[in-house]
Amino acid sequence: MISIAVAGASGYAGGEALRLLLNHPGYGQDFEIGALTGASNAGQRFGSLVPGLPQLADRIVEATTEDVLANHDVAILALPHGVSSSLDLGGTVVLDCGADRRLSSEADWDAYYGGSYPGSWPYGIPELPGNRPTIAAASGVAVPGCFPTGATLALLPGMAAGLISPEVSVVSVTGVTGAGKKPAVELLGGETMGNLRAYKVGTHRHTPEIAQNIRRVLPSGGEVRVTFTPVLAPLGRGILTTVTAQAQGSAAELRSAYEDFCAGEPFLHLLPEGEQPEVKSVVGTNMAHIQVTVADGVVVATSAIDNLTKGTAGAAVQCLNLIQGWNETAGLPMAGL
Amino acid sequence: MISIAVAGASGYAGGEALRLLLNHPGYGQDFEIGALTGASNAGQRFGSLVPGLPQLADRIVEATTEDVLANHDVAILALPHGVSSSLDLGGTVVLDCGADRRLSSEADWDAYYGGSYPGSWPYGIPELPGNRPTIAAASGVAVPGCFPTGATLALLPGMAAGLISPEVSVVSVTGVTGAGKKPAVELLGGETMGNLRAYKVGTHRHTPEIAQNIRRVLPSGGEVRVTFTPVLAPLGRGILTTVTAQAQGSAAELRSAYEDFCAGEPFLHLLPEGEQPEVKSVVGTNMAHIQVTVADGVVVATSAIDNLTKGTAGAAVQCLNLIQGWNETAGLPMAGL
Amino acid sequence: MISIAVAGASGYAGGEALRLLLNHPGYGQDFEIGALTGASNAGQRFGSLVPGLPQLADRIVEATTEDVLANHDVAILALPHGVSSSLDLGGTVVLDCGADRRLSSEADWDAYYGGSYPGSWPYGIPELPGNRPTIAAASGVAVPGCFPTGATLALLPGMAAGLISPEVSVVSVTGVTGAGKKPAVELLGGETMGNLRAYKVGTHRHTPEIAQNIRRVLPSGGEVRVTFTPVLAPLGRGILTTVTAQAQGSAAELRSAYEDFCAGEPFLHLLPEGEQPEVKSVVGTNMAHIQVTVADGVVVATSAIDNLTKGTAGAAVQCLNLIQGWNETAGLPMAGL
Amino acid sequence: MISIAVAGASGYAGGEALRLLLNHPGYGQDFEIGALTGASNAGQRFGSLVPGLPQLADRIVEATTEDVLANHDVAILALPHGVSSSLDLGGTVVLDCGADRRLSSEADWDAYYGGSYPGSWPYGIPELPGNRPTIAAASGVAVPGCFPTGATLALLPGMAAGLISPEVSVVSVTGVTGAGKKPAVELLGGETMGNLRAYKVGTHRHTPEIAQNIRRVLPSGGEVRVTFTPVLAPLGRGILTTVTAQAQGSAAELRSAYEDFCAGEPFLHLLPEGEQPEVKSVVGTNMAHIQVTVADGVVVATSAIDNLTKGTAGAAVQCLNLIQGWNETAGLPMAGL
Repeated sequence: MISIAVAGASGYAGGEALRLLLNHPGYGQDFEIGALTGASNAGQRFGSLVPGLPQLADRIVEATTEDVLANHDVAILALPHGVSSSLDLGGTVVLDCGADRRLSSEADWDAYYGGSYPGSWPYGIPELPGNRPTIAAASGVAVPGCFPTGATLALLPGMAAGLISPEVSVVSVTGVTGAGKKPAVELLGGETMGNLRAYKVGTHRHTPEIAQNIRRVLPSGGEVRVTFTPVLAPLGRGILTTVTAQAQGSAAELRSAYEDFCAGEPFLHLLPEGEQPEVKSVVGTNMAHIQVTVADGVVVATSAIDNLTKGTAGAAVQCLNLIQGWNETAGLPMAGL
Repeated sequence: MISIAVAGASGYAGGEALRLLLNHPGYGQDFEIGALTGASNAGQRFGSLVPGLPQLADRIVEATTEDVLANHDVAILALPHGVSSSLDLGGTVVLDCGADRRLSSEADWDAYYGGSYPGSWPYGIPELPGNRPTIAAASGVAVPGCFPTGATLALLPGMAAGLISPEVSVVSVTGVTGAGKKPAVELLGGETMGNLRAYKVGTHRHTPEIAQNIRRVLPSGGEVRVTFTPVLAPLGRGILTTVTAQAQGSAAELRSAYEDFCAGEPFLHLLPEGEQPEVKSVVGTNMAHIQVTVADGVVVATSAIDNLTKGTAGAAVQCLNLIQGWNETAGLPMAGL
Repeated sequence: MISIAVAGASGYAGGEALRLLLNHPGYGQDFEIGALTGASNAGQRFGSLVPGLPQLADRIVEATTEDVLANHDVAILALPHGVSSSLDLGGTVVLDCGADRRLSSEADWDAYYGGSYPGSWPYGIPELPGNRPTIAAASGVAVPGCFPTGATLALLPGMAAGLISPEVSVVSVTGVTGAGKKPAVELLGGETMGNLRAYKVGTHRHTPEIAQNIRRVLPSGGEVRVTFTPVLAPLGRGILTTVTAQAQGSAAELRSAYEDFCAGEPFLHLLPEGEQPEVKSVVGTNMAHIQVTVADGVVVATSAIDNLTKGTAGAAVQCLNLIQGWNETAGLPMAGL
Repeated sequence: MISIAVAGASGYAGGEALRLLLNHPGYGQDFEIGALTGASNAGQRFGSLVPGLPQLADRIVEATTEDVLANHDVAILALPHGVSSSLDLGGTVVLDCGADRRLSSEADWDAYYGGSYPGSWPYGIPELPGNRPTIAAASGVAVPGCFPTGATLALLPGMAAGLISPEVSVVSVTGVTGAGKKPAVELLGGETMGNLRAYKVGTHRHTPEIAQNIRRVLPSGGEVRVTFTPVLAPLGRGILTTVTAQAQGSAAELRSAYEDFCAGEPFLHLLPEGEQPEVKSVVGTNMAHIQVTVADGVVVATSAIDNLTKGTAGAAVQCLNLIQGWNETAGLPMAGL
């Protein structure tokens, strides 16, 4: 039985990772849950911070240190940008939910993050063609950002088939947990309920990650251009992504490409024509519901994911399953609330 | 392997029962999911009605008839009031999520429902003292109402210990799924978001069911009086119940009674002093989070449940586990989203 | 003192028109509120249908007939598509909040609505260059759709200046009142809270209206192409529109065009660079908050409006003010809740 | 023309006061809006803090000091507890939205607030019998708490008539703006959306204020006991209060008392029998919608108010109108969104 630590355990991504692990069939058999760590919360009773996980309520949060974490077989890190790459955890397998290891281009890193470039790790979207063996062999995985996951899964079947122009406009409407559990006035319930607003227009750090994923699957070169506009909406969890781009094939070809691609993917659910994905169907699950339409020569591809599950902690567990040789779908819900 | 039908499968309670069954460890081993039935929806593709359960998306809804349902070992009924008691399902084990068999007093039935009294069945709150063997031996269970579940679990430890006066004021704040999926103007998003309103004040049909549960556990006779006020709030799932009554013991005695009672109950989570239950912690779970406080000789007992899980479909599965001799907690989440 | 009737008074747009009229400085001086009409609600107490307008609570809803309405100087019509153009109200000034008279192209009408083409009326966005005298002289105004209002006001300053390509991708995130008060399962609180979904992708009837407005202000010909994707979000009122298109000028030129255009418009509020419009700021007001950004040669223009105020009833009152020679801003709030 | 300063202008109560003042018919004629002050926000552009008031967007927030405020005829103070009583504003008329001057009993102050007792001022519920002349003559008014306003207005007609026992259970369900705009994890959108929780059960500081109001109107002595349970719900604005108590008269007597009392009150709207108040009807207004029912010898009185309007800033403006001799209802909306 291996042990798994969760760093940043009292945040939204950390809590979701723990929820998935507690319901995982391997819990108590293949693995145990080790240290729950935090920064300012170290020393506190976990149940006072995350009251929804009664099984762990009486645990005490430990400090996020190399010593605490390296003492485990696996560490799931849900830490602020820049922290994970500063930790040396030796032989511990790391699922890094932060951004530090996602970008394979140092120029992208410099343009959007800055500071010393920490390099990149295998990228945790198993659905990318050819990616499963890479992940399975990895000792560290860069779990993708939630927006890039939504956009990539919406585009992937058509982009990989060369049927969608790589100049895309991505508008992603997201729930508020995507911004984390930090106390900030603009994230208060009083500021977010009954409200909608775009933010970081043209400057969001997830932009180069979307472009990187497109480049990875694009059959022919072509210029990749991603215009990304996130919109904050009054719900807790979920992202609805719309991608608009020129079609480079017929509606029938696109439909066929999506059907072929999704057929073998347990977490991609292509909806019948005429139905659109909705966030409520995927909340708490590791699914991406997907649709593609073509009108007037323009593709609109849409996807719905739970930003904390398929968008973060579910992807981490999916990659963990691959690394450990467990069933890839183990512990990852498909049925939504 | 037994087969389980779900009637009213496209409603909220039916859908939640299916979500729980799909994630149940016995699914595909101990049981299969048989017919999904509906009334006006018969003949439609299930995925178009309930898009969040992709495993069942291509099923076709069948008509809710005795023939269809009796052809199963178990039927979970999530039907409008009055329908379930009109069905004769022979030897099929029935978990009835409707009200038809809940009231053991014909006078209560006449006062609140009217029409021919269908009698009563074993009542599906396993936490009621001595109730587990009764449920385990039953061929039909009256799954409790969501409000009575919340109020009963908040009161039960103190009431059974004689520490709370049976003249209680219950105010239950509920999400909108409690009213079902029927298209009515007052349940539209435009009418319920950003809104709060009390309804059926003094007349709600769950009132006698709460009183019946109090009478059942009251150690000495005493007059039972329940004033019940439901309040509709802008969320999908969950009930937060507050019960106010005269204390008949000290704060320490009450605390002790609650601790003793909850210690052995897997789905009752008594919070530490100073913390209050919240709905978010229990959404999607079969848990009741509970607190009790005493001030100025008055008890305020509170509970949080998911109206569709512990309040309906989770209770049905919990009773099904008891009847089938499966682990009582199998397939019933404890970790909230 | 003239009299104003409101048809469809118990719907969201009708109710909002009445709220504005009740707070209008001309109420009781320049005009009185005449008949409140409805279809299935005729004969009912208005306060039971719209409890938020206590001044009118004891009114009885009358039937929507030519006789009732033509007996007024002004009629504000908030009726289902197709009804308003079937009414002959003689000399009564009509503010038609429906779609019947919006499209000046019969081909567009045939493609998106069908049936006999009712012709078009002066179009009720006073901010369109040169449009105020036309509205002021009209006896009937086609009040614009809510989505076209949001998209048009976001684009107008840049498009009229030739600085934005007329091939645009419009994604509009909207509250649920935009769909009206009709009882439909997909509009229930239980279906819309905690949810996001795109709908009518590529087929929404507001698409040609947006294109028509672009054509109207485009300085040089050019091909107009509008890809329009509405997204339903869990809030009552408000639309956040993002428009993505190729820039045809520099960021400085665009900023300057927006500043010049908005300077003279009482209901257009251009935000400082770096700030984005939010719906909460405009709920209950007749304002459009606007921003424009350019990155990598692509313009993202955004706007926030209240779909029921600037998007419908507020526009109607603004046009009414122009027709009656009242102060254009009278009775139209600028300060948001 | 007098000048009015608003202290704590960027908070929810301050912003609402400004919204009301901007729409007040006396604005620009009888009064001007003077300094907008803040603590940590001093020096910032007001529009960046409160984007919904474009008329004041370019104002700069000043520091909350005696010098700044005393330089006005009137100051509306929306400040943290303890700050207002530390300010000496000389002859400036003060509407204090904080708690410092509400309690007339030093013992209550010591029990619930502590520290030096600042004494009490005339209490700003004009609807309390005989209170209007007192307010009109005051140079300082203690604007009531939002919960006491809701509970008092629900109870007032029956309590003053001796028809309701003064031992009451008050459960108030409130939107999140009641807690102010301070950045705290438990007030984040991610913690409050989809959630309900009781808080400060048995200890909330508004408890003695409710009791004080009951004592003030109770015709015969009798012991007053208030059990107060606030519940936080996922909406921005509004309080739905339920009060449960023994009836001391018949349903007809209670109905009659409520009808008589509300008949002369512009901001009290007694609903017809069978209808219940809802928050949506009063958001943005200064109204209290009220209902009273009796069942089984128990009264359930309910009210809906907007916590920021009638519950705070609207009450301040209502008192200001009385003090200045303006129309009591001027600038105070009655028609809800």
